Amino acid sequence: MPSTGSKGGVIIAGTIGNSTIIDMMISQGKFDISPILGTWEAYLTAVISDPMPGVSEAVVIAGSNRRGTVYGLYSISEQIGVSPWYYWADSPPQQHSTIYATDISVIQGSPSVKYRGFFLNDEAPALTGYIDAKFPPSPWGPGFNADFYKTVFELLLRLRANYLWPAQWNSMFNVDDPRSQALADEYGIVMGSSHTEPMMRATKEWNVFGNGPWQWNLNNNSIYPFFVEGAQRTKPYEGVLTMGMRGSGDTALGAGIETDLLENIIQNQTAILEAIWGNASVQDPNIVPQMWCLYKEVQGYYQAGMQVPDYIQLLWTDDNFGNIRRLPLSNETSRIGGAGVYYHFDYVGDPRDYKWINTVQLQKTWEQMHLAYERDARQIWVVNVGDLKPLELPISHYFDLAYDISLWDQNSVPAWLEMWAAREFGPAVASQTAALMNNYSVAAGRRKFELVDPTTYSLIDYNEADNVLAQWQAMQVSAQSIMNSLPNATQPAFFEMVYHPVTAGYVYYDIMISTARNNLYAEQGRNSANAVAQHVLQQFAQDHALTVQYNTLLNGKWAHMMDQTHIGYTYWQQPMRQALPGLQYVATSERDLAGDMGVTIQNSNATVPGDDMYHTLSSNSLSFTPFDPYGVSSQWIDIFSMGTKAFTWNITANASFVTFSQSSGSLSPNGTTDIRIWATVNWSQCPPGRGMVVINVTTTESQPTMYDQQTLYGTQYAMPQLMLPYNNTVIPSSFQNGFVESDAHITIEMEHWSNITTPSASGPAVNYTVIPGLSRTLSGVTLFPVTAPSLSTTTGPALTYNLYTFSQNTTFGTGNLTVTIATTTSLNTIPDRPLRYAVQLDNQTVKTVQYIIDQPAGANPTNWGTAVANSAWVSSTNFTYTGPGAHTLKVWALEPAMVLNTAWIDLGGIRPSYLGPPESYRVA
Amino acid sequence: MPSTGSKGGVIIAGTIGNSTIIDMMISQGKFDISPILGTWEAYLTAVISDPMPGVSEAVVIAGSNRRGTVYGLYSISEQIGVSPWYYWADSPPQQHSTIYATDISVIQGSPSVKYRGFFLNDEAPALTGYIDAKFPPSPWGPGFNADFYKTVFELLLRLRANYLWPAQWNSMFNVDDPRSQALADEYGIVMGSSHTEPMMRATKEWNVFGNGPWQWNLNNNSIYPFFVEGAQRTKPYEGVLTMGMRGSGDTALGAGIETDLLENIIQNQTAILEAIWGNASVQDPNIVPQMWCLYKEVQGYYQAGMQVPDYIQLLWTDDNFGNIRRLPLSNETSRIGGAGVYYHFDYVGDPRDYKWINTVQLQKTWEQMHLAYERDARQIWVVNVGDLKPLELPISHYFDLAYDISLWDQNSVPAWLEMWAAREFGPAVASQTAALMNNYSVAAGRRKFELVDPTTYSLIDYNEADNVLAQWQAMQVSAQSIMNSLPNATQPAFFEMVYHPVTAGYVYYDIMISTARNNLYAEQGRNSANAVAQHVLQQFAQDHALTVQYNTLLNGKWAHMMDQTHIGYTYWQQPMRQALPGLQYVATSERDLAGDMGVTIQNSNATVPGDDMYHTLSSNSLSFTPFDPYGVSSQWIDIFSMGTKAFTWNITANASFVTFSQSSGSLSPNGTTDIRIWATVNWSQCPPGRGMVVINVTTTESQPTMYDQQTLYGTQYAMPQLMLPYNNTVIPSSFQNGFVESDAHITIEMEHWSNITTPSASGPAVNYTVIPGLSRTLSGVTLFPVTAPSLSTTTGPALTYNLYTFSQNTTFGTGNLTVTIATTTSLNTIPDRPLRYAVQLDNQTVKTVQYIIDQPAGANPTNWGTAVANSAWVSSTNFTYTGPGAHTLKVWALEPAMVLNTAWIDLGGIRPSYLGPPESYRVA
Repeated sequence: MPSTGSKGGVIIAGTIGNSTIIDMMISQGKFDISPILGTWEAYLTAVISDPMPGVSEAVVIAGSNRRGTVYGLYSISEQIGVSPWYYWADSPPQQHSTIYATDISVIQGSPSVKYRGFFLNDEAPALTGYIDAKFPPSPWGPGFNADFYKTVFELLLRLRANYLWPAQWNSMFNVDDPRSQALADEYGIVMGSSHTEPMMRATKEWNVFGNGPWQWNLNNNSIYPFFVEGAQRTKPYEGVLTMGMRGSGDTALGAGIETDLLENIIQNQTAILEAIWGNASVQDPNIVPQMWCLYKEVQGYYQAGMQVPDYIQLLWTDDNFGNIRRLPLSNETSRIGGAGVYYHFDYVGDPRDYKWINTVQLQKTWEQMHLAYERDARQIWVVNVGDLKPLELPISHYFDLAYDISLWDQNSVPAWLEMWAAREFGPAVASQTAALMNNYSVAAGRRKFELVDPTTYSLIDYNEADNVLAQWQAMQVSAQSIMNSLPNATQPAFFEMVYHPVTAGYVYYDIMISTARNNLYAEQGRNSANAVAQHVLQQFAQDHALTVQYNTLLNGKWAHMMDQTHIGYTYWQQPMRQALPGLQYVATSERDLAGDMGVTIQNSNATVPGDDMYHTLSSNSLSFTPFDPYGVSSQWIDIFSMGTKAFTWNITANASFVTFSQSSGSLSPNGTTDIRIWATVNWSQCPPGRGMVVINVTTTESQPTMYDQQTLYGTQYAMPQLMLPYNNTVIPSSFQNGFVESDAHITIEMEHWSNITTPSASGPAVNYTVIPGLSRTLSGVTLFPVTAPSLSTTTGPALTYNLYTFSQNTTFGTGNLTVTIATTTSLNTIPDRPLRYAVQLDNQTVKTVQYIIDQPAGANPTNWGTAVANSAWVSSTNFTYTGPGAHTLKVWALEPAMVLNTAWIDLGGIRPSYLGPPESYRVA
Repeated sequence: MPSTGSKGGVIIAGTIGNSTIIDMMISQGKFDISPILGTWEAYLTAVISDPMPGVSEAVVIAGSNRRGTVYGLYSISEQIGVSPWYYWADSPPQQHSTIYATDISVIQGSPSVKYRGFFLNDEAPALTGYIDAKFPPSPWGPGFNADFYKTVFELLLRLRANYLWPAQWNSMFNVDDPRSQALADEYGIVMGSSHTEPMMRATKEWNVFGNGPWQWNLNNNSIYPFFVEGAQRTKPYEGVLTMGMRGSGDTALGAGIETDLLENIIQNQTAILEAIWGNASVQDPNIVPQMWCLYKEVQGYYQAGMQVPDYIQLLWTDDNFGNIRRLPLSNETSRIGGAGVYYHFDYVGDPRDYKWINTVQLQKTWEQMHLAYERDARQIWVVNVGDLKPLELPISHYFDLAYDISLWDQNSVPAWLEMWAAREFGPAVASQTAALMNNYSVAAGRRKFELVDPTTYSLIDYNEADNVLAQWQAMQVSAQSIMNSLPNATQPAFFEMVYHPVTAGYVYYDIMISTARNNLYAEQGRNSANAVAQHVLQQFAQDHALTVQYNTLLNGKWAHMMDQTHIGYTYWQQPMRQALPGLQYVATSERDLAGDMGVTIQNSNATVPGDDMYHTLSSNSLSFTPFDPYGVSSQWIDIFSMGTKAFTWNITANASFVTFSQSSGSLSPNGTTDIRIWATVNWSQCPPGRGMVVINVTTTESQPTMYDQQTLYGTQYAMPQLMLPYNNTVIPSSFQNGFVESDAHITIEMEHWSNITTPSASGPAVNYTVIPGLSRTLSGVTLFPVTAPSLSTTTGPALTYNLYTFSQNTTFGTGNLTVTIATTTSLNTIPDRPLRYAVQLDNQTVKTVQYIIDQPAGANPTNWGTAVANSAWVSSTNFTYTGPGAHTLKVWALEPAMVLNTAWIDLGGIRPSYLGPPESYRVA
């Protein structure tokens, strides 16, 4: 409740035990500090009367330590209307003529996670380019100086983070600017160094100042004092020391697992710390916090039995693609040092870099960090954020989870986004912006932009590429609409955090899908291939224009921050230059050998008339995939120009129940008038059962010569014919709540179960839970709690799906059908409990599928690169197909922390695509 | 000796036994006909006084049969100055005010081969389009009528041919125009039908008039009378009946070898012929000539032991790529029917069609047809000539060989070409045109145009693509120069037979190689990639312009004859539409991440500064292949713009004996000023032995900003350095007449043997013979006579090559070197005598290589598709490398009819290319 008038607006903030004013109020019993006394980063706020002489009333903030006090202050700042991103993403502070404090005491306890920070990494070209343009160079390279870092420190604190791994590829935090470390400590930022930089020394320090090779076994006489200097230098400040050692430049220490070598290194490092801090302090992670990061092959050392002191914090890692590889086992949770997670929002490496714009699926972050928290990895959360700048949204989300994960459940992403959007852009656009960015999160998370190329999405099957591109275009329209509604002051922030990624993402997708269209049309001989090539070139220019717009925004405040190349990948590493994939041109001045008119249909590469490798040579006929009432009732026909003369066309069917969106027209050879016609079956007019309709497409040309008359369909081809098979069928009324076959397959979104079968034997208390948006398409289904033990088909519940099929048999010729299941890319975090599911069709034998095969020595699992590229593990099982009618599919998740997405039952009809055929008709 | 005045110019021509005038002169003893009496197609010419009442003197031609007389007349016509091609290729008849006859009697004996003809095939789009434009349609399709065929008949006769397989894909010779068969017989043309059209009936006749399937076992009741009608229809005329049966549309009869079925078919066909001609006549190939063609799988029937009557002519075939698959064995030469060869100058099928313009290597035709003749395949030579029109040159050559092969030996192609060029275009340009077309024959024969794509020739290694393109460009310049020197009347013929194929071939090569350059430059980030793309588009337009020029020549006389698509192949069959391979565009408005200046060197895909997949990440250094006095003394460095600002560059070496063609300069970002610099080692200044020179390439930009100053080589890269390894070495003076290693390999053109080692045991009388031009590069080496028996290393001579090497060891890491030998694509024509060679290094164990592995059932040999695509069989053998110094390589051809081209001795230095590294330094 606001007070009724101005009381002067005094705010008193201080840290318990370090502020005489606060301590005096405590001693006077003005408030009760017992809930936070001695805790980590907690604070208490209250409106206090007569807090001190001469002040009648004040808002008082008492922190349990210095950062607790800071968080209390920044909490008020945020409530007043200052976004944590006011500098780094230009969110405009709200203007108020008056500010009121509510007379409610708040006790904010300790954060969920102790050390919460990010890593500035892979920082060229964007962040380094920005530094080069904005800050004078250091004697050793780019000017990553204290003037830069103070903006980072403040951002971290406003985000309630406390920990930083500084930029390191071409900089030295402690050397480039001697002010930086002291300033960090003044801000209260806990400094660390990356997993590959031991004893608080940057890699570049060795390159510049070190002697000899970075190899302990060959050169420890030089490396030892280098370590000593790092430890001594950090002693005055709050920091977490990285222990161990990797090879030079973020590579492996050696070819094999050299446990003895690494144990010797840690023993020496420990001896250094003991000499500086004393033996007892070194064993207290509250005094000399140390961290050993189990990154890539280092995890292999641990698995090989390497002994690491109990007080060293173990930092488990993800696979660089957001999937945590290992978490504390039940016998590892009592370690004094505890455990944490090193996570990635940005990466440089196999199978491909992702470092352009935000591709983080927020639901994935929630699911993985929730798992980490529940599995007691709560000591350190550090996330690689690349250049920082384009990842404002996932950074905010990540630190909100780290600060108080109890506020956010599996359904929380939309609500979190709405809160975030209201803070950054105002409540008027919060709902629409949240919906947009929820869609973006799924769309960009399906596959990293850098891995999307013209071959990714199918232009042929399921209208996949068209649908995906339409979704991006709709998002772009939404972003534009919101942008237009915003006041000028808010537009830069919206541009940086919403409009740019959405629009640049749309342009990127248009370039790749339109290039695919160009290549397909060129192979089909369409004149329009050339027009599509022109469109791609225009969008390439548009991609550049968006980059320029970003870099020149606000008088170039973020100059070079969008310099990251993203078009032109040929292997895992970024292209040095943006280059389009190949565009093809057809000879529009020459007629196609098969005449002026070409015809193709949905789900086909082939063109008639004429020859190609996709249909029988010299045939003039193409067949649609079957029409039925439970699948498609409309499919398209493209009629296009592939010649030099205008023509008129006419389309007719030998059955009146097939109608066309247009039945005649004319096309010019200019490549812009090609037409898509929809053929529709009117089921009420269609005879029951199976049949075939023949569609003819004829053409005439004006003033034909003798040659024209003889070569209407080219010198040797015949009039196009399209065969339309149909099956006018009906499911029995007894079939309820399940999926119906069409086109020889059934697609199931796993959340649409018919029912859940309870276990036959008593087992752990678990429930199937839906995580909306955690999927390439709809949602994830997983078992809660995530700490549950393993299940079996007798102790665990089954997801049960009713099915109805029409196919007489499968087209594989084996009598088998295939059940394929896609899960998220989550990995086996418990070595002896790999993720598994069981699956059963009707009463056939249950089959158990372990779909991730771990590899030794810290290597990624078999086929890991394909899985993370595709954002899915996909596994298949065969069952006998017993014929048409009702069937039942059961699926048991046998481990928690596996997330089921989609199932496909293939009777032979599934064709290649990226996302698989979309969900089938469902009786619900 | 010319007579001294006009004597009236009477020519009397007639066939012995069919002309009362000729017979009267014979009875009067005016000339002696005994040398030709009763022979096939011979004639006698003489100047005869008082040949008949009222004529004082005449040139008299007496033919042994009607075609003998015709050939006598056309021989005089040609001597007068009328080319056989006066109509079909517009060679202008020579104008003479007076014509003299020399008083020399000529006796022209029978041709080398009895039936000499061609097959009009694969006739769409070109020939069919021409027919559609020029002749009214028949009731059943294109107007392949007698008006068209009379020009073909006359052409055949003027070329001294006598036999025709008419067009058949969409026509019926006997049905489309009832005049055609009678007219053929009036001209004296022997009609046949293709190998797949039995009993003189066109495939289309069954399609239009037949009942039921074209399957003998299911439908012989319908097919039998269809055969009867064909035989009866041909009875009045001279013809060769095709026996046997294949499947519909030039496909196999069935999946397996069904010998019984085919024997039953031939028995029935024979019964039909016997009913029409009588039993005895059917067994006389002079009365009822029959032919069974062993095409593709049909050869498998024969090999499986199928019995075929002795009087049926066996027509062996090539592999559709000009390599004869089988020829009469010694026990097959006495068959009454004899044998012949069906050969291809044009083909539609695997691995790829070739049907655009002439790709026939004349030396190959000579070698194969000489072999056929020597092996007694002299009954029928028929060649598939596609549309006829673009193959004038190889057709002329083929029929000249067939008419009198004794005139043409292994060195004859240049002389034949000069004769041909003089006849077609006049003696003034004959020598230059012959040289041009000899080069064209090798260049176009290296690989069919349709199989040349941007990946074929290496832009990286051996300057291969640049050299090949330069060769084509030089040929084009020569063609243009000759064209300009010709009178107007001769230009159309020259355009059709020389200028068009040479120029279109050059444009085609430029499109493919420049597209490769565009793709490479795009990957390297060069601005010039976009300019190269523009050049490709211009040449694509030029390709079209050449087609238009051909089709509109002489008021469109050859309309549509050049309609064949040739750019855009994606599988074996022709593309329906011309489409370029993909062109890439770089973002010239954005700077490369590695700065404005890029540097690359010969033999490298890599670029510095910057990262790519071809050199160590973050390295700024590239290494040349080693320089030495026996290899390259100069290699190139490309300095190019990959940014947005102009810059100056400077190149320096840390050794004065390395000089540069240019040492500094400036480049603009417009993509047209990239520079190629040659680095040269001055050996007289160079210290002896091995060493390494470091070359630095630096850059400066004007008015640099703080950002520019810090990012001269991009945000994270360093100044380019080029490493130049050299070996200043010398061979001992004792090494004579042999090849010297450089770049860890030796390349040997086989004709450059050091000496020939005579056999240790007495063997057959054979000699190594060089066939100039029968190679992808220089020449072929083969054993004569081609009818020699098999040889061994003791009975046969060895080609011996002296070698000198410097490498300490090979870079394979195995201690082995590899000897790779390329031969022509000739096949095993004697089943139990596969082609083999033996090879020996120094005194190591001799190794024998059988490089063609035949397959059963008439299938092509293993890897046949690759061999014919590459125009070479390539086989490799390992030997131990015993270290630097002198070595000796010996090669024995163990069978005649194998043609050795090139050998490579690889010590680990050979890099990928199409033709292999060029010939090494040779002491001669």
